[in-house]
Amino acid sequence: MASSILSDCSTARLLPLRRALLPQRVPRIHPCPALASPRRLFAAARPQLLPRPHRMDSVPAAASSAESATVSADASAKVIDGKLVAKQVREEIAVEVTKMRDAIGIVPGLAVILVGSRKDSQTYVRNKKKACEAVGIKSYEVNLPEDSSEEEVIRHIASFNSDPSVHGILVQLPLPRHMNDENILNAVSIEKDVDGFHPLNIGRLAMQGRDPFFVPCTPKGCMELLHRYGVEIKGKRAVVIGRSNIVGMPAALLLQKANATVSIVHSQTKNPEEITRQADIVIAAVGVANLVRGNWIKPGAAIIDVGINPVDDPESPRGYRLVGDVCYEEASKVAGAITPVPGGVGPMTIAMLLSNTLESAKRIHKFK
Amino acid sequence: MASSILSDCSTARLLPLRRALLPQRVPRIHPCPALASPRRLFAAARPQLLPRPHRMDSVPAAASSAESATVSADASAKVIDGKLVAKQVREEIAVEVTKMRDAIGIVPGLAVILVGSRKDSQTYVRNKKKACEAVGIKSYEVNLPEDSSEEEVIRHIASFNSDPSVHGILVQLPLPRHMNDENILNAVSIEKDVDGFHPLNIGRLAMQGRDPFFVPCTPKGCMELLHRYGVEIKGKRAVVIGRSNIVGMPAALLLQKANATVSIVHSQTKNPEEITRQADIVIAAVGVANLVRGNWIKPGAAIIDVGINPVDDPESPRGYRLVGDVCYEEASKVAGAITPVPGGVGPMTIAMLLSNTLESAKRIHKFK
Repeated sequence: MASSILSDCSTARLLPLRRALLPQRVPRIHPCPALASPRRLFAAARPQLLPRPHRMDSVPAAASSAESATVSADASAKVIDGKLVAKQVREEIAVEVTKMRDAIGIVPGLAVILVGSRKDSQTYVRNKKKACEAVGIKSYEVNLPEDSSEEEVIRHIASFNSDPSVHGILVQLPLPRHMNDENILNAVSIEKDVDGFHPLNIGRLAMQGRDPFFVPCTPKGCMELLHRYGVEIKGKRAVVIGRSNIVGMPAALLLQKANATVSIVHSQTKNPEEITRQADIVIAAVGVANLVRGNWIKPGAAIIDVGINPVDDPESPRGYRLVGDVCYEEASKVAGAITPVPGGVGPMTIAMLLSNTLESAKRIHKFK
Repeated sequence: MASSILSDCSTARLLPLRRALLPQRVPRIHPCPALASPRRLFAAARPQLLPRPHRMDSVPAAASSAESATVSADASAKVIDGKLVAKQVREEIAVEVTKMRDAIGIVPGLAVILVGSRKDSQTYVRNKKKACEAVGIKSYEVNLPEDSSEEEVIRHIASFNSDPSVHGILVQLPLPRHMNDENILNAVSIEKDVDGFHPLNIGRLAMQGRDPFFVPCTPKGCMELLHRYGVEIKGKRAVVIGRSNIVGMPAALLLQKANATVSIVHSQTKNPEEITRQADIVIAAVGVANLVRGNWIKPGAAIIDVGINPVDDPESPRGYRLVGDVCYEEASKVAGAITPVPGGVGPMTIAMLLSNTLESAKRIHKFK
């Protein structure tokens, strides 16, 4: 249903997320060096590890490596290259889409509904469309005027629900203020809710012996990065920083399902750094620039940084640049593996949206 | 929907739960003293704290106390008296039921469906019926033969779904082997699923900004005990031992919703004692007799013991007695407050079932 593309959050969603989850007791004595010297941000670490294919076995194994990402010999973390993994995932999806089309004549379809004319939303929708086209997924788009009624939007959703050529439906957020998000999102058929935000889906994610119809895209992307970089999850301590419905909570549930021992750190947590320091795996999704400092990190830990926070940067042509929730410069000296921002989790989200759409088409048409 | 009465687990559910969650790395060097000297089991602590009313404000405040349960001066934990609290809750419910009947002429109704003739299930159903009658809730019962078809059970559920005098529906578990539990439980209308096990309910429990229709009875009972004994939850570290769908996971989600920092310890956790020792609040729901030893407990912590495990006891007329997941004799010397077994969480479960049925009737009839 609703778009889960995290880069969307930089304008539409990040501020409320930040307000909701900002830890109130975190000491902020020293600014992260990355803030002071932006140009050094990614100097310390370069991609050293090619991801190994996971889950999608049909894919060319060119980028295969069994090396573990959690051992760092030179105290400089391995970079978990989301761009590279996302490219690989998209290539795998393209192969699968072709195979499906050739075998049963079905092409997966993704419908996106955009209400209003926000520039950022238009860009996100365009990017999704392009990404679909690149892997052979058919995309459908409906643009409705800002003053449309809830009923009108729901009518379009209902029409996509019953359209057999559409396997995934996504309502671009934010919706205009006069609309009730929940009413609209609940109208998307659970079988086509490729964003995976429906409570029924989240419930199935939380429960043993049940599987969700779809795993929400960004948390799914985090897990995919861990898997592809050979980070062991079972039996490991994991900390998720942030408990949002779209990233933190589902990420925690996924890690739990993968048999990690999971703790969720949030705005009311009294000693977040101490708890985070116990973790072999950290997923930071709180929307606070450089919150997680080097001394929060257990040596050798794997760090997945979901945050994409704009910070002022007069040297940048745009006047700002994007940084994560983790102070990369500090953390990359302690961690065993770490995602950069940008180029870490960001590119994975659209790739996982395509993956969910393919998965949906396969399930609906019983194609394996 | 399905029965969540935890004492039911002692025969019907405990063994599978135990198999699923048994920690494999827990050293078991010394047997818990309680196992060696059963008669001393509850000698160390007596109820010292009367619960204070919480959430149900209309109730006589006779048993009121603001004293915190987490401070123990004499290194002997306060006993969290589930029997006493459950009695108080049932009295509160009786008052509310009378008020509702007098105001709008509606009496809450609970329907229980029992398939087969298991002696234990018959006892549980009888107890629920009695508990309903005692507070003025009308109970409906359907007994179906062991060889009934799934369709037959679902037909009865459908009839209760549409019966306006029924506000809660409960299918007594376990069902005969030829039936698919999920199919049957999913047939119960979400508005009448007083057990709260539906994935949609669990999803709403997990998500921020959403509330479940019903909180599953046993975890709700755990929270009620914490609240009534004045145990602060917000900002505290909590550990839930066990991640079952009926207790562990929903208990963790509830603690999280109440702003604790929650970790779930399970069979794959490598150092459960170390993690548990960090917790201000422990909910143990794993089904392993005396698993949690005194040295797992942080001094002053509040301990809610959900386990009801039969252990051999030649001195008992039945040849066995019931103990919790926590070694009471050891833990009560370290903890600030602790539930006994029996007499702790057990009595709360039926009380919460009545509470959910009342809540359902109030919601359906918009009675406040």
